Amino acid sequence: MNRINVVKIGGNVIDNPEALERFAHDFAALPSPKILIHGGGKLATRLGEQLHIPAQMIDGRRVTDADTLDVVTMVYAGLLNKRIVALLQREGCNALGLSGADGDVIRAVRRKSEPIDFGFVGDIDASKINTVLLRTLLDSGVTPVFCAITHDGNGSLLNSNADSVASAVAVAASAIAPTSLIFCFEKAGVLRNVEDEGSVIGEIRPDNYATLRAEGAINKGMIPKIDNAFAAIDAGVQSVIIKHSDSLLQESGTTVKK
Amino acid sequence: MNRINVVKIGGNVIDNPEALERFAHDFAALPSPKILIHGGGKLATRLGEQLHIPAQMIDGRRVTDADTLDVVTMVYAGLLNKRIVALLQREGCNALGLSGADGDVIRAVRRKSEPIDFGFVGDIDASKINTVLLRTLLDSGVTPVFCAITHDGNGSLLNSNADSVASAVAVAASAIAPTSLIFCFEKAGVLRNVEDEGSVIGEIRPDNYATLRAEGAINKGMIPKIDNAFAAIDAGVQSVIIKHSDSLLQESGTTVKK
Repeated sequence: MNRINVVKIGGNVIDNPEALERFAHDFAALPSPKILIHGGGKLATRLGEQLHIPAQMIDGRRVTDADTLDVVTMVYAGLLNKRIVALLQREGCNALGLSGADGDVIRAVRRKSEPIDFGFVGDIDASKINTVLLRTLLDSGVTPVFCAITHDGNGSLLNSNADSVASAVAVAASAIAPTSLIFCFEKAGVLRNVEDEGSVIGEIRPDNYATLRAEGAINKGMIPKIDNAFAAIDAGVQSVIIKHSDSLLQESGTTVKK
Repeated sequence: MNRINVVKIGGNVIDNPEALERFAHDFAALPSPKILIHGGGKLATRLGEQLHIPAQMIDGRRVTDADTLDVVTMVYAGLLNKRIVALLQREGCNALGLSGADGDVIRAVRRKSEPIDFGFVGDIDASKINTVLLRTLLDSGVTPVFCAITHDGNGSLLNSNADSVASAVAVAASAIAPTSLIFCFEKAGVLRNVEDEGSVIGEIRPDNYATLRAEGAINKGMIPKIDNAFAAIDAGVQSVIIKHSDSLLQESGTTVKK
């Protein structure tokens, strides 16, 4: 099989209908095989507010109780996933939306309730991806579109982190064909100076990463993302690219590689 | 391929968590290959009320404006579809939830706005089913689970009738292998006397159908369902069975055949 492109988009694209249409157009033009993973955006928070299901945060992280799980399932697996699939179909991309429960494609483990009970939150790893089904879909010319709802195999849906789903899916896809993982966000890449879109760091390798960190050239919030990128590469992904969602088809952004 | 069972469940099963769990248990035990189609239930109406999106009815039928389409997409394609898939996965059935947009599996035509504009409502026929993908999924041991959300191929999702989806999917499946279509509802079958669950008509064929109608032995509301059953049979389905959702695995109900 040809190189697999695994692309992740976040709330900044999803919350903006024009940006989402532009992205769908570009994504459809990206060579196949390919896989899309989408985050949630602000719609779930807004729906929760309308339904008087207030967001509960602990240490800055959202708690997913049973009512919140219903809200995120409706928004992520229902509204957003199907909207994105319909847009991609319009663009001629044969998208097929999936939660982790569908075809048992991503089984997660509910996070322990100690020390903090985050509720129906599921952690995943690449060994829990149904690679056989993934290969069948890709072989059929289908483009899987994942939301970050997973399941425990015991009847419960779980809320997972979309970046983690993207990394795990990319690692699993690496067993099928060489795989690139592309994180699209609202900046042109990893910036030396967050105020300057022109200051993109073109390449991060283990040898310059230490230096960049020591110089303070990488924003603190980026460090866990880059650590995760290196973890995905260690697990078999060929390269991880961090770039703006408007320049999916351009050579641009920051490439993390060994 | 072995006989394909296409099963449709409606609101009476979906609105009752215990009935749904019982049904999931039985459906998982039904021989494969099999396909499930589910209706909507009362949850969409309730969510619409909570969000101050009132149901608009014309001639007893629901109008699907843009807000209502979002509500039914969230509930049917999101919450209900993924809950059912997760329950079936628990029972060891490798379910995979689909709207018609996913894999372009059911393309619908938006209903004309004259004489009555029902909004985002889509009519389908069996020729619009992606039989190639259906076969690929069934060959892989996957059980497709359809909600009645479809798409127009031009970026819009559409609200379709679940009975029509079931019939069209069964007709399309008939091109793959001999297919039975099973409508599960809250009665033991087509009853001579709606008050008497023991009065099930075992078999309806063209020759006794005319007599049963002339005798008034078939309730008026049942006539369109039986007409649709004969239409499905004329289009290739081997038999249509109308039975109680609690007796999926028993020889029971009314069989419509030629």
